[in-house]
Amino acid sequence: MTLPHKLLILSEQAQEYARLLAEASLPGLSLVAVTGPEQALRRGAECDLVFGEPSLIREVLTGLPNLQWVQATWAGVEPLLDPSLRCDYVLTNARGIFGGLMSEYVFGYLLAHERAILARAAAQQAGCWDRTEPGSLRGKLLGLLGVGSIGCYLAGTGRHFGMRVRGYTLSSESCPDVEQYFHEADLPAFAEGLDYLVNSLPGTPATRHIVDATLLAALPARAVFVNVGRGSSVDEAALEAALRSGKLAGAVLDVFEQEPLPPGHPFWSTPNLVITAHVAAPTFPADMAGVFVENYHRLLAGEPLKYRVDFERGY
Amino acid sequence: MTLPHKLLILSEQAQEYARLLAEASLPGLSLVAVTGPEQALRRGAECDLVFGEPSLIREVLTGLPNLQWVQATWAGVEPLLDPSLRCDYVLTNARGIFGGLMSEYVFGYLLAHERAILARAAAQQAGCWDRTEPGSLRGKLLGLLGVGSIGCYLAGTGRHFGMRVRGYTLSSESCPDVEQYFHEADLPAFAEGLDYLVNSLPGTPATRHIVDATLLAALPARAVFVNVGRGSSVDEAALEAALRSGKLAGAVLDVFEQEPLPPGHPFWSTPNLVITAHVAAPTFPADMAGVFVENYHRLLAGEPLKYRVDFERGY
Repeated sequence: MTLPHKLLILSEQAQEYARLLAEASLPGLSLVAVTGPEQALRRGAECDLVFGEPSLIREVLTGLPNLQWVQATWAGVEPLLDPSLRCDYVLTNARGIFGGLMSEYVFGYLLAHERAILARAAAQQAGCWDRTEPGSLRGKLLGLLGVGSIGCYLAGTGRHFGMRVRGYTLSSESCPDVEQYFHEADLPAFAEGLDYLVNSLPGTPATRHIVDATLLAALPARAVFVNVGRGSSVDEAALEAALRSGKLAGAVLDVFEQEPLPPGHPFWSTPNLVITAHVAAPTFPADMAGVFVENYHRLLAGEPLKYRVDFERGY
Repeated sequence: MTLPHKLLILSEQAQEYARLLAEASLPGLSLVAVTGPEQALRRGAECDLVFGEPSLIREVLTGLPNLQWVQATWAGVEPLLDPSLRCDYVLTNARGIFGGLMSEYVFGYLLAHERAILARAAAQQAGCWDRTEPGSLRGKLLGLLGVGSIGCYLAGTGRHFGMRVRGYTLSSESCPDVEQYFHEADLPAFAEGLDYLVNSLPGTPATRHIVDATLLAALPARAVFVNVGRGSSVDEAALEAALRSGKLAGAVLDVFEQEPLPPGHPFWSTPNLVITAHVAAPTFPADMAGVFVENYHRLLAGEPLKYRVDFERGY
């Protein structure tokens, strides 16, 4: 692709991104920064590059005749993968910036579980000197459903706390902190003996309801399930049943089949379930701008862009 | 010291320690395992070695004419440091086994603070989809009051989560994860700009009330103080005042001047204060038995014992 380039920033944080990219003084690049699809189509129709939220970009795909490259500000790009949509451009997603944040979320809740932080807070409220012995992550078995950049970061934190770490992946075995890999039909063997199961798989047809009654039944009753991937990976009715019957000790969910989680959804009253509102890993604009800047320099240099999404595979 | 040795195990977990040491088949060692001082004096008076809790051992010191070495099962050995007590024996404490556990406690509460785990749990109870953006440890400044084996472990975990780490110590500067050291009169400079202050200093006359109104006033109002060292290091009235006035964002205390924390103590009603019941780092018998076994082999080999306590210095 040749200079000059015209970039449409289509994001709730468009002004912040425009400021950060202006600071980066990117050669040959002019910017149109808008927060909504209507403005985008009015002011940005000539743009060849787009940077922003997949849910917004989806609305303007047909109105961008010159489109060459979309850099998404999310890790999950499902809104752009609908087979009815065009796929004649390079799509790159946000990667490499969420591992640390996801790790803070996951290990915040793992440690809160081992240390009974909520129960101790209740004891304190009651004026009670609670000598209950704490648990420890050390020696516990962590199972990672998905070992991409996020899963691999989680593996590193698990090892830091002395955990044993297993991974279930499609094919990759490149994370040095995963001690044992499982693939395909190995799912029940992967689940056996886990203390914690953490899902960070992308939402694709292949991962739909991978956490189902069969997988949940293969977990020990002491296990806790954490979902920081996508809600579509979980059979929510099966998870609710496992928690209500005590066959699973707990679950921590940041993502759901429908978000916001609707009022009246059974999860609101399911025991031993932590619900958070898709806040595990917010996109910090400075990090995300850095991803765009690096990829823009690659574009100029004629190098392959990083974090390219395969439209067929879905990640 | 020559063979054979006779070991008095004086501990609430005496049977477990006796089992673990018997498994270790230590040459030339016979065991007397008791849980209380009276039994100890009746059955263990001839022992030359003692292994157990400092608070119990203190009660039998005068009844052990052959005493050569005490291996304490605690890191803090204050009960044995009273100047009125004998100090004609080698005293070693528990070290090297608490870093990981302390780190789980400290970072459990640091992450609970950044991620507002308690507030989000309350929102969930209210059926509220709480989109409050979480904080992150990354880039935050951690100040370690004391950089012994526990402080250095905390530094490593802080660096894992992308924190900047400072240490205040008497003299040592050997922890690779501490970026900047402060000593003696540098305490206000050490405190400046900290997001988290974590005390792991031993309880000695020199560390008494080191966390006082002056140090607390030097912290930013956003700072959170964590105490996993000793209660005697904190001026509790000054800490209460700082929390009540909002000059300090929060505190997490596992240790207190008086334990259990008495009913009616002002801390029970102080805002933004987490109270836990001296449970940050329980002594796991298998770990502690390992410390004894290693030191016993050193004793037999005529090597200096590890973790020797200086009665004057107090650690």
